[in-house]
Amino acid sequence: MIGIEAVGVYIPETRISNYSRQEEFNLDSNFIESKLGVAQVAVKGAEEHASDLAVRAFYALRGKVGLDKREVDCLIVVTQNPDYPLPHTSAIVHGELDLGLSCASFDLSLGCSGFVYGLSLIESFMERNGLNFGVLITSDPYSSIVDQRDKNTCLLFGDAATATLVSRTPRFVSGKFTFGTIGRQYSELICREGILSMRGRSIFDFAARQVPDEITLLLNRNGLEIGSIDKFIFHQGSKYMHQTIVSRLKIEPKKAPFGARDYGNTVSSSIPILLEQEIDEPGVRTVVICGFGVGLSLASGILFRENSLTKQINP
Amino acid sequence: MIGIEAVGVYIPETRISNYSRQEEFNLDSNFIESKLGVAQVAVKGAEEHASDLAVRAFYALRGKVGLDKREVDCLIVVTQNPDYPLPHTSAIVHGELDLGLSCASFDLSLGCSGFVYGLSLIESFMERNGLNFGVLITSDPYSSIVDQRDKNTCLLFGDAATATLVSRTPRFVSGKFTFGTIGRQYSELICREGILSMRGRSIFDFAARQVPDEITLLLNRNGLEIGSIDKFIFHQGSKYMHQTIVSRLKIEPKKAPFGARDYGNTVSSSIPILLEQEIDEPGVRTVVICGFGVGLSLASGILFRENSLTKQINP
Repeated sequence: MIGIEAVGVYIPETRISNYSRQEEFNLDSNFIESKLGVAQVAVKGAEEHASDLAVRAFYALRGKVGLDKREVDCLIVVTQNPDYPLPHTSAIVHGELDLGLSCASFDLSLGCSGFVYGLSLIESFMERNGLNFGVLITSDPYSSIVDQRDKNTCLLFGDAATATLVSRTPRFVSGKFTFGTIGRQYSELICREGILSMRGRSIFDFAARQVPDEITLLLNRNGLEIGSIDKFIFHQGSKYMHQTIVSRLKIEPKKAPFGARDYGNTVSSSIPILLEQEIDEPGVRTVVICGFGVGLSLASGILFRENSLTKQINP
Repeated sequence: MIGIEAVGVYIPETRISNYSRQEEFNLDSNFIESKLGVAQVAVKGAEEHASDLAVRAFYALRGKVGLDKREVDCLIVVTQNPDYPLPHTSAIVHGELDLGLSCASFDLSLGCSGFVYGLSLIESFMERNGLNFGVLITSDPYSSIVDQRDKNTCLLFGDAATATLVSRTPRFVSGKFTFGTIGRQYSELICREGILSMRGRSIFDFAARQVPDEITLLLNRNGLEIGSIDKFIFHQGSKYMHQTIVSRLKIEPKKAPFGARDYGNTVSSSIPILLEQEIDEPGVRTVVICGFGVGLSLASGILFRENSLTKQINP
């Protein structure tokens, strides 16, 4: 059985505080804490690229598990801010880490739904091809494309990267997934001429409407009741968005952490950053994950703690 | 059993002839015909983007098979020249085609190995998620990034797109694949500041050395002899590269078509363009496909005509 064995996280130390921008953007503290929920955003160094953050996340992962680099037989980088349009960033990371010749490497271009898609893809690709050690990296440094004068984006997005080891000795295995796309709204969150622009209201409406439906579909597909889920790890869009989803689904707030206050919305890294904190919590046996945003795209999945799988699937 | 049902191809009608550039680049006809093997390259309209070519390829596919758009439940676009860095081009194509909400859509960033990777990915993703109709699109218009004064690239690369229907009523099903990456050579074929550059000699050396090894590995992995293969569809890098590979593997030349003379090296579209021509040839029962280039990356696979599968696997 293939699944998640460990997650490594890299969040740059440098922060830009939204409190330092109160005057510039006429922000009150309530807006910062209750609407955004982001007090500061993490920012990479100007000379760092997606591959550099990815390599740091890989070494954070290696600090947790014994992993021989030469055994890695699949490397995926989820990014929409690659080092170059071509080659793919995974090739650069592959070279930087000196991985082996037979390691399959490719990039997945997705935003906030990227970790959930990537997890389903790496698991199915590894199963089909008989692979043993896959590394799923998320690294989408939006500071490269954020206009620091645009309060819609610069107060919200933070830089980070994660590396998830997918192996045959998993801590979490996946149930059935759901995926969705509303392509006709593709321009709601877009990078044109190197600058990100976002229609925040449209993204909010999309998330508030579609995510609860998607979670309901996910639970039905897996034959589970919402009350049986221990944790809900949603993409961390903004605090207000998060609370709206949690409230519409009538989830106990403590089951659905909001963790972006000190680093921001890290796009495809938002879910694995929070997931890392649940890996060593044996009481957390079922975790719903859901990513949504750029595309517009959404994806959800359910993770079962390995020793609880049999019980969950055959109650 | 999931596999390839049909392939649609779109090659723009406009061509730039390499014969019209003989003086500018001091080319003799022998170089054009025997080394490049490309007499003219296909070029998209200046206002066309990857998504436009992708949509045209989709309609070429629909001209061949009855396919209800609302039944498409997976859409992959392989590109490294997306319309925008974000969102993914597959979202734009999804919107343009008015596909359904539950259609999974994502982009795969890979170059010349992209079709082979994409085929393995879409098949495994569809199997794992119980999907029925997947469309794998390749659309990587290099004319957007080629410097028309750089003879290393402008004489070689052509624009095209393909759309491959992957379904449960296949004409070809896949055997085992191989994948490889040499990331430390990532800069041999790269787009910097919007301009493509290629070290042709390094790419040639890579292909001439690695592809024969990869094909040998592929055949071993599938328990087949090279003589039992009906067709070899290699990425169409250049004619000299193609002939070198064919000769090193001692393949009868008629089994390994070179088809890029009239449109150029179309990156991830090169293999499906040639594969389309074999779909209706019942005598072609086993096809080796191999893509190699940007990354550096390579991938190979073997396709069995559906009614021949049992015989091939259990001889």
